[in-house]
Amino acid sequence: MGRPGGLVRGDAPWDSKPNPFMSQPEKIKVAIVGASGYSGEELVYRLLNHPHAELSAVTSRPNAGQTLAQVFPRFATHSQARTLRFIQPDVEVVAQSAGVVFLALPHGVAAEFAVPLLEKGCTVIDLSADFRLRSAARYKEFYGHEHPAPALLEKAVYGLPEFYRAAIRDARLVASPGCYPTSILLPTLPLLRAGLIRSTGIIADSMSGVSGAGRKAELDYLFCECNESVRAYGVPKHRHLSEIEEQLSIVAGQPVVIQFTPHLIPVNRGIHTTLYLSPASEFRTEAEAAALGARIAACYQEAYAAEPFVHLLEGKALPDTKNVVGTNLLEIAWRLDPRSGRLLVFSAEDNVVKGASGQAVQSFNILSGFPETAGLV
Amino acid sequence: MGRPGGLVRGDAPWDSKPNPFMSQPEKIKVAIVGASGYSGEELVYRLLNHPHAELSAVTSRPNAGQTLAQVFPRFATHSQARTLRFIQPDVEVVAQSAGVVFLALPHGVAAEFAVPLLEKGCTVIDLSADFRLRSAARYKEFYGHEHPAPALLEKAVYGLPEFYRAAIRDARLVASPGCYPTSILLPTLPLLRAGLIRSTGIIADSMSGVSGAGRKAELDYLFCECNESVRAYGVPKHRHLSEIEEQLSIVAGQPVVIQFTPHLIPVNRGIHTTLYLSPASEFRTEAEAAALGARIAACYQEAYAAEPFVHLLEGKALPDTKNVVGTNLLEIAWRLDPRSGRLLVFSAEDNVVKGASGQAVQSFNILSGFPETAGLV
Amino acid sequence: MGRPGGLVRGDAPWDSKPNPFMSQPEKIKVAIVGASGYSGEELVYRLLNHPHAELSAVTSRPNAGQTLAQVFPRFATHSQARTLRFIQPDVEVVAQSAGVVFLALPHGVAAEFAVPLLEKGCTVIDLSADFRLRSAARYKEFYGHEHPAPALLEKAVYGLPEFYRAAIRDARLVASPGCYPTSILLPTLPLLRAGLIRSTGIIADSMSGVSGAGRKAELDYLFCECNESVRAYGVPKHRHLSEIEEQLSIVAGQPVVIQFTPHLIPVNRGIHTTLYLSPASEFRTEAEAAALGARIAACYQEAYAAEPFVHLLEGKALPDTKNVVGTNLLEIAWRLDPRSGRLLVFSAEDNVVKGASGQAVQSFNILSGFPETAGLV
Amino acid sequence: MGRPGGLVRGDAPWDSKPNPFMSQPEKIKVAIVGASGYSGEELVYRLLNHPHAELSAVTSRPNAGQTLAQVFPRFATHSQARTLRFIQPDVEVVAQSAGVVFLALPHGVAAEFAVPLLEKGCTVIDLSADFRLRSAARYKEFYGHEHPAPALLEKAVYGLPEFYRAAIRDARLVASPGCYPTSILLPTLPLLRAGLIRSTGIIADSMSGVSGAGRKAELDYLFCECNESVRAYGVPKHRHLSEIEEQLSIVAGQPVVIQFTPHLIPVNRGIHTTLYLSPASEFRTEAEAAALGARIAACYQEAYAAEPFVHLLEGKALPDTKNVVGTNLLEIAWRLDPRSGRLLVFSAEDNVVKGASGQAVQSFNILSGFPETAGLV
Repeated sequence: MGRPGGLVRGDAPWDSKPNPFMSQPEKIKVAIVGASGYSGEELVYRLLNHPHAELSAVTSRPNAGQTLAQVFPRFATHSQARTLRFIQPDVEVVAQSAGVVFLALPHGVAAEFAVPLLEKGCTVIDLSADFRLRSAARYKEFYGHEHPAPALLEKAVYGLPEFYRAAIRDARLVASPGCYPTSILLPTLPLLRAGLIRSTGIIADSMSGVSGAGRKAELDYLFCECNESVRAYGVPKHRHLSEIEEQLSIVAGQPVVIQFTPHLIPVNRGIHTTLYLSPASEFRTEAEAAALGARIAACYQEAYAAEPFVHLLEGKALPDTKNVVGTNLLEIAWRLDPRSGRLLVFSAEDNVVKGASGQAVQSFNILSGFPETAGLV
Repeated sequence: MGRPGGLVRGDAPWDSKPNPFMSQPEKIKVAIVGASGYSGEELVYRLLNHPHAELSAVTSRPNAGQTLAQVFPRFATHSQARTLRFIQPDVEVVAQSAGVVFLALPHGVAAEFAVPLLEKGCTVIDLSADFRLRSAARYKEFYGHEHPAPALLEKAVYGLPEFYRAAIRDARLVASPGCYPTSILLPTLPLLRAGLIRSTGIIADSMSGVSGAGRKAELDYLFCECNESVRAYGVPKHRHLSEIEEQLSIVAGQPVVIQFTPHLIPVNRGIHTTLYLSPASEFRTEAEAAALGARIAACYQEAYAAEPFVHLLEGKALPDTKNVVGTNLLEIAWRLDPRSGRLLVFSAEDNVVKGASGQAVQSFNILSGFPETAGLV
Repeated sequence: MGRPGGLVRGDAPWDSKPNPFMSQPEKIKVAIVGASGYSGEELVYRLLNHPHAELSAVTSRPNAGQTLAQVFPRFATHSQARTLRFIQPDVEVVAQSAGVVFLALPHGVAAEFAVPLLEKGCTVIDLSADFRLRSAARYKEFYGHEHPAPALLEKAVYGLPEFYRAAIRDARLVASPGCYPTSILLPTLPLLRAGLIRSTGIIADSMSGVSGAGRKAELDYLFCECNESVRAYGVPKHRHLSEIEEQLSIVAGQPVVIQFTPHLIPVNRGIHTTLYLSPASEFRTEAEAAALGARIAACYQEAYAAEPFVHLLEGKALPDTKNVVGTNLLEIAWRLDPRSGRLLVFSAEDNVVKGASGQAVQSFNILSGFPETAGLV
Repeated sequence: MGRPGGLVRGDAPWDSKPNPFMSQPEKIKVAIVGASGYSGEELVYRLLNHPHAELSAVTSRPNAGQTLAQVFPRFATHSQARTLRFIQPDVEVVAQSAGVVFLALPHGVAAEFAVPLLEKGCTVIDLSADFRLRSAARYKEFYGHEHPAPALLEKAVYGLPEFYRAAIRDARLVASPGCYPTSILLPTLPLLRAGLIRSTGIIADSMSGVSGAGRKAELDYLFCECNESVRAYGVPKHRHLSEIEEQLSIVAGQPVVIQFTPHLIPVNRGIHTTLYLSPASEFRTEAEAAALGARIAACYQEAYAAEPFVHLLEGKALPDTKNVVGTNLLEIAWRLDPRSGRLLVFSAEDNVVKGASGQAVQSFNILSGFPETAGLV
């Protein structure tokens, strides 16, 4: 699909791309701002083990002064984790330390760091929602406040590699997609692009593990409040709708409104999405169903057969979050239902990996020219 | 709605209703056939503590000879649980022991017991799927074998008290509803009956705890295969569709086909269902939405305000399985989505209580003339 | 054992015991102060369903103004739960509402309510640690501040019914035991009293569900921090040691020091304790082991055969928290290990029921003259 | 400690060590026999990603014919996992495929493969219990049948790298330690070797995740039987005692008998062990405690400061399985308790990694001359 939004590299001061931070031929210095949450922890893990990244600075207000291994004991095997210490977030220090900076900050806060880091020449991969939308008005509608840096919106690239790979390659500001959007867009976009489904009536029913709520001390996310519990939340207008619908609309060539219902389930990690879609053509006979099925299979094959992180399941297999937790994989399976005339598509991913930090590293690999699976297997 | 299906008491030999088993003025002798699974265990619990039931026989092939407390140590406080022993399933013994017999058996097997027990004068409350459908053909379509006792299908009463209370009162054979069907029918039937929603395009997306799979030694239900996992299964044509659609069709007055997707989540008990419904009238303005909302609220109030086991949530509250596990409650909340034009309804229940054994005891209370909440609070 | 501490009813103003609060012949008015935590919720549940209690007041600062059913939706079936509203904690109002008051407050705070409530003639059942010790010095050593009402310490009765039943019967102030202490004392006290084990070298290794930490918004108790985790905490000097050792010392007739290690495991409820004990006599031969085993069995039989809430397991069965969660039961099993010369004893209980609110209701039943199992089956 | 048992390379036919299987300078061909369980799956994961291993054959009776990715969808990113198929277990084929063979088979079965594989020149790393003991009599005592290949017992090396590194380097048959033994031996052996603790009275209280029971279709390990449950099992004489006591005895220079109690907790992976130890010297004063503490700290530092996979925690930190799950780390912390005179030591590991497959790969790295952390970070 090329670059759906026609994004091109801008001409801002941060637009030329030197790379003075390449410490050896094959390693790029990277920093993480705001690394005390679950996404930050996963970023630390992936970048500590990345063959082409050198983690040079990690910031966290609450953890400043402590080593990575003190805060995240699971990394104790890594010698660097025993020595590298969290610092206070400081744009100047971060910009001098690294060529590529990952922002794992709350929305609103991320933009405050992105602007000066870009001005100082860094490439920024932002995991927040701040640069995922192109419309500042839509941002305000869904996030409740004015966008802090609207001028950057058109320069940011939506970091969904399977659809924006070329744009990511040249990006200086990557807006890494949300966890739910990734689980919904990857199964839907190829079908919509191919005209196999209608752009109306789309329903996405998702279940997420509790890490999606972040590492926040709130009663709702206590163990005893989540364990042995399942509940919907954020209905009917969850914030992630904004970026999901924007991306669907770009591909559909017209405004798309969908139904999206997130549920909280008692697992640490993982998002499962069940999509209810209407095929563009009816399939009343077995022959029609077989023909339509063949077109859907071919569409997915064309889109994803060569993708390292999209796993098209075969036979009777259905996605299961336990198969993808800890990996950057997204599983997809689909079924035509001749009784209802609908197409059901199922996906599973790790919300912290393919839904956040893993996908951000995937973008990092792309824009740095490294193998796309580096640090992700 | 009266008796939707026009069920009347039949004239079979088991149709007169003496009650020679009433041991004291207020206690009825009851038996459970097949009490080693999760539903059987819950039945034992409810009936041991029931103020008007005397548990006189409990059968189980694997547990025969052991006391209730040996098999289910949690009942050790009950003196009867320390003395009553499981026996081998034997129609003659059971029929002599009890006036009301609960069957907690696999489908197909239940009918083999129901027929002779009815002939011997017992009232039967069957928790299996054997008598939930009126059509033997539909049974065969969904369960894969001929119905073992088709003549009884029209005599059985579908044991959903909120809709078949009058018929249950006179029933000699109650087909207690399935867990998913209960979670889908209670939120949907009032709206459909009132003409507030269309009978087409209904989608039910459900999540169930693992007890729904029964106490079976299968790899798929091992702790490590279910924990930290969520997956869809039984798509797109789960067996429970048959009874759901039959009940919806009765109320709609025409055949109804719905979409139903069950998912397995890592909790012991609990079903959460999210329903996607199309209001019969559009609501494009705020005024239209308010008017429609008022009608929906009134419809639910009329249907359930006096029901002891349906809890209509108010304000921002949404159903949560942790609020209903261990109770016979079903929670309902709803939201109109002006963006999509849909009505979303959410329900939560304990699949083993309101979805199985609790509801069966509710029917027992009704047909015995006891307070409907007896043994259920 | 009679009353181990020789407690007798005092002669304070609150010592005469009228009972003007008896609303009908068989119901006593009760109140709960501080009912928003897990123990408070369980107290509400038990007292709402209690055949001889009428819940007349429930206080909670954060929930004041809301009905019980709004805060605890699981009680929605109870008509009273739909009408009774939480009030602000106010001694005057509470004392006028109820004859027996349960305190489910943090330690230190409980005493502030207990003193005036006792003065106003109420009987107080305190679930906090404030009155469990007889020594104000020991309280200060373990709780870090001066005891707020040391004069009451000698009047309080330690509410472990299996050992203080007679004293509880006459008590005006019951100090309901802690969750860990209950799980350790019930298996140990009979053996120690009978001289079957030494009072030295006792080790108690316990695992608790997360509800034991209370409903507090702290990072350590978030779902993702507890799920898929097990860890020791509070070592080597957990506060509960103070009451455990005091009770052991009373029975042993000399100071007892034990080793106690609590662990946090990912379950909502339940405590499992493994005790390592040294038999007073050696058992080197099979005959010696058999003789000792017979004495241990007889000791436990004598202590607990008639107790409704202590379940002595037989054969190969071992305690399992899943068998006691939701019940007021404590399970006990034991094994002699000829290789090590030790006696291993295992116990399981629900920390919120037998370890807190259920045991408090048991004391309530005793001091009110009701059947001890009322509201607890 | 050198080689505690004085093991030397034998002179059997499998004793010379060519390495014709080295496909490139840096990769060794490896095979896994019995790769359908949890340990087998982890071995596949580690070896697929190992920089110096080439997975050339994987056997499994139930999965023969399927690709790795079909059986373990989480490996779908690996191109080899999409092509390599499970084969039936066949010594001839395996021996021709690989120079190093990992056995992930039940005890008793493993020896049947080990003998011919060794004869054909393979190096064998066995994850079962078959070669962990030196005494065939002790094997029979604990495992209930004659040892199938007693002649090999003295040639096998106990694969605990931190203590047998030199012997592993030359081994042709490595008996990789059990999960519980690893969690107990690593914290205990240094103290025992240094004479800091007595060899008597040792108590090990352990909790294990359910993966420790293997992927077996048994009722006891169903989700609903393990979730919200904790229970002891295998008391008082668990099989793992045999290898724990043998290793302790070697270091102590005299027979050691310990107390070991395993518990099953509802997590997928992870073992936590709490050890109760008696210091060889008393510490009644603060000065004595400080002096003893310094010796313990120095002892652990000397043993483990340079070990990549043993993490000595500092300050207030205590081991937590969530910090080690998915890693080859074992965490250790300790506390002196002046009240009881005991030394408490805590450890946490992933039972499937450091307790099984990760440790086996560690041995593989050692005997192959690769960096010890290869494939394990």
